[in-house]
Amino acid sequence: MSFKIIKKSKRSSVRLGEIKTKHGIIKTPCFMPIATCGSVKSLDSIEMKKIGARIILGNTYHLYLRPSDKLIKKLGGLHRFMNWSGPILTDSGGYQVFSLAKMRKISEEGAEFKSHIDGSSHLLTPEKSIEIQQNLGSDIIMVLDECAPYPASKKYIKESLELTTRWAERCKIYFDKKNKALGKNKSLLFGIVQGGIYKNFREESAKQLVKIGFNGYAIGGVSVGESSKKMFQVVDWTIPFLPEDKPRYLMGVGKPEEIVDAVSRGIDMFDCVIPTRNARHGTIYKFKSKSENFSPCRNLPKGTPTSSRFYEIIHITNEKFKNDKKPIDKNCGCFTCQNYSRAYLRHLFVSGELLALRLASIHNIYFYLEMMKRIRKSV
Amino acid sequence: MSFKIIKKSKRSSVRLGEIKTKHGIIKTPCFMPIATCGSVKSLDSIEMKKIGARIILGNTYHLYLRPSDKLIKKLGGLHRFMNWSGPILTDSGGYQVFSLAKMRKISEEGAEFKSHIDGSSHLLTPEKSIEIQQNLGSDIIMVLDECAPYPASKKYIKESLELTTRWAERCKIYFDKKNKALGKNKSLLFGIVQGGIYKNFREESAKQLVKIGFNGYAIGGVSVGESSKKMFQVVDWTIPFLPEDKPRYLMGVGKPEEIVDAVSRGIDMFDCVIPTRNARHGTIYKFKSKSENFSPCRNLPKGTPTSSRFYEIIHITNEKFKNDKKPIDKNCGCFTCQNYSRAYLRHLFVSGELLALRLASIHNIYFYLEMMKRIRKSV
Repeated sequence: MSFKIIKKSKRSSVRLGEIKTKHGIIKTPCFMPIATCGSVKSLDSIEMKKIGARIILGNTYHLYLRPSDKLIKKLGGLHRFMNWSGPILTDSGGYQVFSLAKMRKISEEGAEFKSHIDGSSHLLTPEKSIEIQQNLGSDIIMVLDECAPYPASKKYIKESLELTTRWAERCKIYFDKKNKALGKNKSLLFGIVQGGIYKNFREESAKQLVKIGFNGYAIGGVSVGESSKKMFQVVDWTIPFLPEDKPRYLMGVGKPEEIVDAVSRGIDMFDCVIPTRNARHGTIYKFKSKSENFSPCRNLPKGTPTSSRFYEIIHITNEKFKNDKKPIDKNCGCFTCQNYSRAYLRHLFVSGELLALRLASIHNIYFYLEMMKRIRKSV
Repeated sequence: MSFKIIKKSKRSSVRLGEIKTKHGIIKTPCFMPIATCGSVKSLDSIEMKKIGARIILGNTYHLYLRPSDKLIKKLGGLHRFMNWSGPILTDSGGYQVFSLAKMRKISEEGAEFKSHIDGSSHLLTPEKSIEIQQNLGSDIIMVLDECAPYPASKKYIKESLELTTRWAERCKIYFDKKNKALGKNKSLLFGIVQGGIYKNFREESAKQLVKIGFNGYAIGGVSVGESSKKMFQVVDWTIPFLPEDKPRYLMGVGKPEEIVDAVSRGIDMFDCVIPTRNARHGTIYKFKSKSENFSPCRNLPKGTPTSSRFYEIIHITNEKFKNDKKPIDKNCGCFTCQNYSRAYLRHLFVSGELLALRLASIHNIYFYLEMMKRIRKSV
């Protein structure tokens, strides 16, 4: 049993759970900071642990192209390479092929593409994606899916989800072959539900994947140009067809209020570039109230509109912070708030100092992880 | 007494000393990492302390222009602004006016210049320079000097050094007025010897400054286009005219072997961008042998050519480090070497990851500070 539900909310579909991986247990609902190329942008693995990250996400596409999964395997795997002892989830590479690579060509066999780094040609098949992730030593491996463009015709979406199912099946077969022999070092394999913004396709996709059987189920293709409202429709359409006893992962989501809302609908796992990307642009998150008074799940049961935000956004480069001796948030326990003022952080941004990016990233990731902690506490 | 000589070498002119400042004691010979705009590039003040930095250098020109000394004063001074509790030396701003600012115009009154940031006009007088440094709350304040261009005519150099002396006198008068009232919070004021590459001018400048009387003496204008050999000539010409019982600071120097050589000639203080700037370009320092066998002063008494290097330079982006599981230096105690491999560091550089700059900077500063520690130990 790789997933255990510890507690369920009576007011909403929130559940507290634990995912067991070869690198330890992850408490859910959880947020996974993104270490695209083997580091969470501007941060080292030791401080990631101090910030409170329990699991991080590595990008298969990036690491495959550079420095290559084969090299990382030779060096002892991604955990050792980046000196991270906690669990790692790797994506399949499909999303980056869709969003970053050039000359994409999808066929039954896989996704052909040209590297965005050097233009070299590659073929990412379902088997190849699993092989790369196994080489990286990932704890949670994602199946290769076709991340359909948005918007797309009904016909395209139907064919795409069926291709995704066939790929998922091939992934499962390839994964099982190697994984069985690993004993204690087994990874988990997650399927990805696709189907665009069509209710029946989401249902169809979910059912097909559940039939194949995975350790967890992701909902994919929701952060690609869709509105928050449509995204939650998709979530609500999909969840009833996913097994209760497996973790559910909403890929690429999202804003704090979206995460809170998705948790209340029964989602267990999240990843998003928002906290780190925003940090590097000086956009900083801050809770409106102290931890004692904060309970997103109480405030936001299933279906409640999330317009009433529990947090503020600070644009730290704003002139008004010039004289501000206060930390970003006096109640925040992060390294940045414990040591530096808004005035200093603003100055670092305005002066183009590298330290600005790191201090802001530390705070924003801490905010996201603290939010997850509060969510878990509130159940 | 702000300076105490603890021990003198019998083999060379090396001396171990202690400079007493309002923020604590600095052991000399010492190296001062440069926090140009209020941070040592890519590093925070807490890790600077962990790396072993005892004193850092702040740039008056940069901090005056942005965020301004007046703002920093309002926020409690530079120490509080950047959360650094150790001593800070600030330069006078003169060197940056010379090297960075536009439309420089030197007159008896001071240095007129246009900001490199927004083109605004400013007049840096000796009094203004001291005022800025006092506003910053500096522990060691430098007089404003004219940093003459190199090469320059004998006539230019003579006039320049005499102007520098007159400015030094004005600095002293202005400094004393405010400093006397500060009691325990008094700063130290250092004079700067100029005189180009002319023996008699260096002598003249030193004598004039000593007559005015400072807490320490810097040798300026040696890192401006001069060769290592000429630099040491200047050092050797100047030192005999500086008081034995005051600290001597060789500004902007230098390479590790230059520091070792200068120490053996009786220099006590150094600052240089080399370790951090090189780090950001992937150029990494590494000792050739373990600490136990290292004694630069034994190997390099006064006058010994420094061609036999005690360290290596690694270009970490080199292909050969691709597979290298070892840390930069297995004997190094820095955070980077304790946690990450050459292969990982290379990967971060090649992938353009921000973390690369920080990890390399941590190591190079550690190397410089460790070198100073070994120098002090070897006396």
